[in-house]
Amino acid sequence: MRISEGVEWAAHCCLLLDWMGVDEPVSTAKLAAGYGLPPAYLNKQLQPLVKAGILTSTAGKKGGFRLARSLADITLMDVLTAIEGPAEAFQCAEIRQNGVWADEPASVFRAPCAIDTAMRAAELEWRRALAAQTLAAVQANAELQAPGLRAQVRDWYGTPRP
Amino acid sequence: MRISEGVEWAAHCCLLLDWMGVDEPVSTAKLAAGYGLPPAYLNKQLQPLVKAGILTSTAGKKGGFRLARSLADITLMDVLTAIEGPAEAFQCAEIRQNGVWADEPASVFRAPCAIDTAMRAAELEWRRALAAQTLAAVQANAELQAPGLRAQVRDWYGTPRP
Repeated sequence: MRISEGVEWAAHCCLLLDWMGVDEPVSTAKLAAGYGLPPAYLNKQLQPLVKAGILTSTAGKKGGFRLARSLADITLMDVLTAIEGPAEAFQCAEIRQNGVWADEPASVFRAPCAIDTAMRAAELEWRRALAAQTLAAVQANAELQAPGLRAQVRDWYGTPRP
Repeated sequence: MRISEGVEWAAHCCLLLDWMGVDEPVSTAKLAAGYGLPPAYLNKQLQPLVKAGILTSTAGKKGGFRLARSLADITLMDVLTAIEGPAEAFQCAEIRQNGVWADEPASVFRAPCAIDTAMRAAELEWRRALAAQTLAAVQANAELQAPGLRAQVRDWYGTPRP
């Protein structure tokens, strides 16, 4: 049970796009250079974010990625769901209905499995916490810890300082 | 990102062992028959629970599994950790230290990555919720929903009714 590295990559790229503060699309090559990532694989990892309406992508020579909405409107849950899909980590296979229980009438299993209920309730706490964290809040923390980060990024990429 | 089916199997087997209420070890074959599971694979899935001190296993013809402690002393977090290991689902690879940032002095990265911090804080909520749920509580819910479950299990397995 491990979250794809794409979640880390995607979250960093969203922050980077915000820090760059440019209007035109940013190429995969530039984003990949930001964190030393393999461009083709990064491009593949960012596609689900386009599908989820977090990024927009433009094809062509001057193409690339742009934020589709502000960091305040993107939560960690949005990023996780885009990359990992909406399925819960705990997938109950209803084994309680098999084996010695297989001949029980369906009514016996009308109430949800207590193990499934407890596992899902716990997982919901995680998803709630992820949904309560916007990338804007994450970014604010990053800048608190490293003041001048935004200006530094713009110097590197040759875009006007904030 | 999916939790192994072994977590569902293990939790159900712990409840089953409690319901059976026998003193001697219960064979893998009997446990597997309870939920229609493949015996050899179930045996493999339950080994980490022995290592974690949740079950004890006895070899030999009359061997099998026993609960090593009461359901009140086993949490969903114990079961998850036994099967999935202690590693967090989100594994930060510190990509922020690569690419254009690679020449920065180490002091720049002394503060933890804000993305990692936020992801871990959310995951901690999940793990806290799992640690707060004992199998005794799960079992109480199961019996509330299906009164007579314990007696039924003992009838099936030919052990004395509670």
